Amino acid sequence: MSAPPATVLRTGLSALLEAVAAEAPHLDVRAPSAATAPFAWDAGTAPRHGEGVEVDGPAVAFPTTALEVQQLVRLAARYGVSVVPRGAGSGLSGGATATRDQLVVSTDRLDRIVEVSPADEIAVVEPGVLNAALNEHLAPLGLFYAPDPASWRISTIGGNIATNAGGLRCAKYGVTRESVLALDVVLADGSLVSIGHRSIKGVTGLDLVSLFVGSEGVLGIVVAATVRIRPLPVARRTVTAFFASTAAGAAAIGAITASRVRPSVIEFLDEPTLDGIDAANDSGLRTRGAALLLIELDGFGIEEQTAELTTALEAVGARVAVESEADAETLWELRRSGRRLGDGSWFVGGDVAVPKSRIADVFAGFPALEARYGVAVSAVAHAGDGNLHPVITLPIPAGADPATVPAVLHDAADDLVRAALSVGGTVSGEHGIGTVKRDLAAEELIERVRIAQLAIKHALDPAGLFNPGKAL
Amino acid sequence: MSAPPATVLRTGLSALLEAVAAEAPHLDVRAPSAATAPFAWDAGTAPRHGEGVEVDGPAVAFPTTALEVQQLVRLAARYGVSVVPRGAGSGLSGGATATRDQLVVSTDRLDRIVEVSPADEIAVVEPGVLNAALNEHLAPLGLFYAPDPASWRISTIGGNIATNAGGLRCAKYGVTRESVLALDVVLADGSLVSIGHRSIKGVTGLDLVSLFVGSEGVLGIVVAATVRIRPLPVARRTVTAFFASTAAGAAAIGAITASRVRPSVIEFLDEPTLDGIDAANDSGLRTRGAALLLIELDGFGIEEQTAELTTALEAVGARVAVESEADAETLWELRRSGRRLGDGSWFVGGDVAVPKSRIADVFAGFPALEARYGVAVSAVAHAGDGNLHPVITLPIPAGADPATVPAVLHDAADDLVRAALSVGGTVSGEHGIGTVKRDLAAEELIERVRIAQLAIKHALDPAGLFNPGKAL
Repeated sequence: MSAPPATVLRTGLSALLEAVAAEAPHLDVRAPSAATAPFAWDAGTAPRHGEGVEVDGPAVAFPTTALEVQQLVRLAARYGVSVVPRGAGSGLSGGATATRDQLVVSTDRLDRIVEVSPADEIAVVEPGVLNAALNEHLAPLGLFYAPDPASWRISTIGGNIATNAGGLRCAKYGVTRESVLALDVVLADGSLVSIGHRSIKGVTGLDLVSLFVGSEGVLGIVVAATVRIRPLPVARRTVTAFFASTAAGAAAIGAITASRVRPSVIEFLDEPTLDGIDAANDSGLRTRGAALLLIELDGFGIEEQTAELTTALEAVGARVAVESEADAETLWELRRSGRRLGDGSWFVGGDVAVPKSRIADVFAGFPALEARYGVAVSAVAHAGDGNLHPVITLPIPAGADPATVPAVLHDAADDLVRAALSVGGTVSGEHGIGTVKRDLAAEELIERVRIAQLAIKHALDPAGLFNPGKAL
Repeated sequence: MSAPPATVLRTGLSALLEAVAAEAPHLDVRAPSAATAPFAWDAGTAPRHGEGVEVDGPAVAFPTTALEVQQLVRLAARYGVSVVPRGAGSGLSGGATATRDQLVVSTDRLDRIVEVSPADEIAVVEPGVLNAALNEHLAPLGLFYAPDPASWRISTIGGNIATNAGGLRCAKYGVTRESVLALDVVLADGSLVSIGHRSIKGVTGLDLVSLFVGSEGVLGIVVAATVRIRPLPVARRTVTAFFASTAAGAAAIGAITASRVRPSVIEFLDEPTLDGIDAANDSGLRTRGAALLLIELDGFGIEEQTAELTTALEAVGARVAVESEADAETLWELRRSGRRLGDGSWFVGGDVAVPKSRIADVFAGFPALEARYGVAVSAVAHAGDGNLHPVITLPIPAGADPATVPAVLHDAADDLVRAALSVGGTVSGEHGIGTVKRDLAAEELIERVRIAQLAIKHALDPAGLFNPGKAL
């Protein structure tokens, strides 16, 4: 944030703001100020301890229609102002961060559920609709939208699309990409195009929808999405499998793969994670075991599924229990938000994915990582698809600055990502690259692939208008 | 095929062939000749009655390694010779057609199953592996590869990827795109790149894998693919639902959607289709009803699924039966290849997809189409995803040329496609655009979208080396 003083806006943005005032006063565009400071960050990059928020943020626009988005993009193109698309700002990789010479286009007011068609199994929504709001709307109809990032209560469908968000249930139902059929997108020249189709299938031309899903706002702004919806399963059941050690639990993931059961959710919590949850909630999970596979089955034949799963897990030493509905609810809440981080410890989070068979190897590498860097390392894993969220922590000594996270945590996190790469994994399973993981992405992708990605970016956004410095 | 005489090859290709002989004699490249004539066509465009096959075909290369593919692409680039990637040639839209100034790169000898990892739920295969060969390899392991185009016995995984092939089971398991995790691809500059990831999830950079899937060979040549494999379902069951009329059967598709059952396969066969199958096989389907929903359920809770499905279908007038294993096998064989076309009739096939709720509307439009053009129109539908395969026929009068299909059939087919577009459908659900549907694709996609697609093509293949004149 090497921003000039607040009164000397760069020519581009100030000219744009003047043009809005003169030509398009109906557009709600806020000039950079302390009030827009929160739009400089996302949830993964915002200062955790309050510093920095007095600095002016970017300009922020709140369009209410696709046409207004087009007008904003055209004005930005005319004055050479970078455009940063923004959903709820709940991202963790810096994809929505913005500087005070940039124009944030917020989807806050593009929040209409345009249509729900149970007969076509689709919903048409604007990008600012919260994931939770869509599912609340669908539940009375006996339907649901499958992708469920942990942020589902606060994140938007548009943000989920920008990051190709994963979640817990995607072990069975696929990630966001598998649930998006069509998009309306504003391109860098301000044109509004529809890509994809309302039918489930369609192969007319290159698959631009999949290209936009996960593109982190560098190709255009999604102003409407046609997404797949599904009938709520006839039954859901939560099964716990506790193990004597993290290693035993991690090894047991393979037993589920070797069975014919495909749970909707398979969450693996290692020993330090269980300790952390118990410490914050007095929940007593550790009295049941040192590692936990928290599993949701759904669909037809729930008894058959439970029996086959139980047999598979008991054969590898698990203590298996079917949880009551009330206990299940508690367990899922503990999984989603039970572990408090940041109180008394520095921490750095992660998001790697590895081939399923290598999950156990990643956990097995934690002790060496801890020894090398003097930090604590633990993780939960979406075990059904090999996606781990490691947490690296270090107690803050008395008198130390909580805001200054020691480099050793980041070094350990980078080492962990490299360990994932070395077993055929990827630097981000679902959070995206944003600003935070660009260097690591460069370690995963060879130069020729990066050149190809940049060529596609350039083909669709030759002036580099959208979200420069992100993702690629 | 305005080809010059066989002895006067154009400079580009003859120079390339000389260079192969001089520099790379290990490459198996056949010069244009009558023997290569079959490589000028695919299954959808080959002359049905033998004419035209005496004309020389394109040059054809049979690389055995990715390195040889790279060498061929570099030579083609050097001499400005267009490259047409080709799998089994079983495509129906002309995507693999080639002229005698072009170089076909066949994947016939890139046919190794490189790896099967049940623990990672993936297989790594070369593009020339037949879909059926992969599944034969997987079955003893209790695994299967889900996408099952009707051509699965003769089509290759590479061809399936090029067309983003659908099939019967994709109602439940998704199309080819949902089963491809990573690709090794030779780009237009001859470089070999790996895109995607061995993990189930991954969001590092733009999703180039999805861009290549369905790109019909215009972006590069796939030389290896990492695909998802799944455990064979614990149970499979075939259910038939016969109806008193095509309209009643088409309307009943919505009853399945409204239930909570999601069959692995839902095939709808209308009255003329049943008549055609019976005529060719003496199978007696029409004695059971005038339209048929042929359904496969799979997975856990097969009894529960059968009960809910039966209730849903009987409520809309179906005569429902659970078929024995032997009867089921017969029925699926009749569905896949029971109707003989082309004996005594001209015919034109189709492949449109519409939103599920509009399937019945498409069938309801057939009588008007028949009246307007004086042809017969019928269809089978992959009803689970709104994908219809219409067949338009006209008896060949005595003395008429079987090879000269009257324009009226094509006009009727185009009208049918436009009817699909008018209800929010697409001009191709799974066969692709190739050469055959480029004009219709231009009716579906607005110019700005076509410009964007061409810009991406140009970004990856600036000289237009790969499969010019196809898909886009």
